[in-house]
Amino acid sequence: MTDRDVLISEVGPRDGLQSISAIMPTAAKKAWISAAAAAGVAEIEVGSFVPAHILPQLADTAEIVAHARTIPGLNVAVLVPNFKGAQAAVAAGAHKITIPLSVSETHSLRNVRRSHAQMLDEVRQISTLIQSLPVGQRPHLEGSLSTAFGCTLEGVVPEKRVLELAVALMEAGCDEVGLSDTTGYANPAQVRRLTRAVWSAVGRDQLTGIHLHNTRGQGLANVVAALDVGLTTLDASLGGLGGCPFAPGASGNIVTEDLVFMLEAMGLRTGIDLEALFATRELLAAALPGEPLYGLTPLAGLPKGFVPATPQKKNDA
Amino acid sequence: MTDRDVLISEVGPRDGLQSISAIMPTAAKKAWISAAAAAGVAEIEVGSFVPAHILPQLADTAEIVAHARTIPGLNVAVLVPNFKGAQAAVAAGAHKITIPLSVSETHSLRNVRRSHAQMLDEVRQISTLIQSLPVGQRPHLEGSLSTAFGCTLEGVVPEKRVLELAVALMEAGCDEVGLSDTTGYANPAQVRRLTRAVWSAVGRDQLTGIHLHNTRGQGLANVVAALDVGLTTLDASLGGLGGCPFAPGASGNIVTEDLVFMLEAMGLRTGIDLEALFATRELLAAALPGEPLYGLTPLAGLPKGFVPATPQKKNDA
Repeated sequence: MTDRDVLISEVGPRDGLQSISAIMPTAAKKAWISAAAAAGVAEIEVGSFVPAHILPQLADTAEIVAHARTIPGLNVAVLVPNFKGAQAAVAAGAHKITIPLSVSETHSLRNVRRSHAQMLDEVRQISTLIQSLPVGQRPHLEGSLSTAFGCTLEGVVPEKRVLELAVALMEAGCDEVGLSDTTGYANPAQVRRLTRAVWSAVGRDQLTGIHLHNTRGQGLANVVAALDVGLTTLDASLGGLGGCPFAPGASGNIVTEDLVFMLEAMGLRTGIDLEALFATRELLAAALPGEPLYGLTPLAGLPKGFVPATPQKKNDA
Repeated sequence: MTDRDVLISEVGPRDGLQSISAIMPTAAKKAWISAAAAAGVAEIEVGSFVPAHILPQLADTAEIVAHARTIPGLNVAVLVPNFKGAQAAVAAGAHKITIPLSVSETHSLRNVRRSHAQMLDEVRQISTLIQSLPVGQRPHLEGSLSTAFGCTLEGVVPEKRVLELAVALMEAGCDEVGLSDTTGYANPAQVRRLTRAVWSAVGRDQLTGIHLHNTRGQGLANVVAALDVGLTTLDASLGGLGGCPFAPGASGNIVTEDLVFMLEAMGLRTGIDLEALFATRELLAAALPGEPLYGLTPLAGLPKGFVPATPQKKNDA
């Protein structure tokens, strides 16, 4: 991280692909991940270990993890809904395992068919499994507080409940927690307030990242708040592909291209080469014909005379 | 302003309509402006006094100003490119006159066919005209620093040049200056930096507003920076209609609906009733069939259980 100010965690191969009906061929996924990593993306959530009959789009996650692990320097992240998924993730060799815990219990039951208590049991089992591995082979375990900013089913989610579950996740053995605006309800004031509150509850080093959606156009505005308060890991999806299929009305992660442009323009180094990122978007578009992509910077182009914070590989603008 | 934290200046009837080829019937413009004002929008840039052969879309501006002046409490703003336009604006009875001065002289010559020196001459003539009016009948004169964040023709615009022209506009008789991201080049760090620099040059009360575009998806992110630094007037366009026809690639003001949602969610009172604003959008859509509108909040709907900062007229959510 010495030559980066912000870590972009690309979640398109997981959150994006799980939200569309098309199934991307394994070879295309590998090409996408390789291209993104070559562009400088240092962490990619490459898939999810869920039963293939639930998300056939991600049935090849083990093979994708194996491929991603061959890319030097890439942090290979996966999502798991439960202990069984974590076993598969450990077997595949993922560097980072994220398990979502929906603060809205109604959403949790709808999404993963488990209560808070059941999910915390799963987390404890995962933690025990990870601790049984040799030091150096233990994946990083993140508990992601989904619907932390509100829920399409329950409505307002009390901050007190977010803090209680953040503490519970850490006590269950997570290395850190994450805040996730699954429903696109977050606003910048709330991002600042909730981040500080979670820090008070579990410690500053135990929350470094946020997963934002652009459902109501607030994605990058919320990023500005997240940066102000001091978060350093930002989830985003190339072309804005994806969303939460279980939260009605919630669609679209924040767009990696627009995010990286903003950060680089602000003088914050992402380590990512923008032109190479735009080329990766073309690769994605070609692999998913007819699938809508979002993001304006690749269409408008970089500003004339633009100098990004990260040294770019080539500069013929 | 006592019951408002932020003033939304709706520029759709000017910046939006000048950027599309359709000519909205005068009656539809009046209905739009009346509905927006009834929703709580307190300032509307209702048109531009430019020759009808250049912008036939705005040829009825005098009639629109006359209508808007009949709406109690509405601040009626217009754009003028020169002294002649200002004479018409004064004759029509506009409350606020904005004249753009493009910091990029290349853009100024392309946009209004005048150099900086020529534009400042126009401003001086306008100021003299305004000062000749009885106190109480003098419109507020704003000099808008367009391309302040960069230019599609010149590229990087030196901040020093922005400050020099801000001072020159105030010396020429403006009541205040505004910052305008004509080209959608601005980033949040730049918004903070440039606002503070202009304040140092001309005084804090002499810059209260910013005109942002969403060309690269950065509009609301830049608003967060503008709010942080302390700006209180934000230009926006209903449905994101419009842009700058003279800056290639620049399209789309920030969207009033998404902006008002963000501010209200942050606890900042805009004085605007969101459902009434969404109804006004429907009016606009019906009056401009086939014209694309932008903005996500009206499509996604307000969050379940959402309580805006401004007391709403009805609450059946």
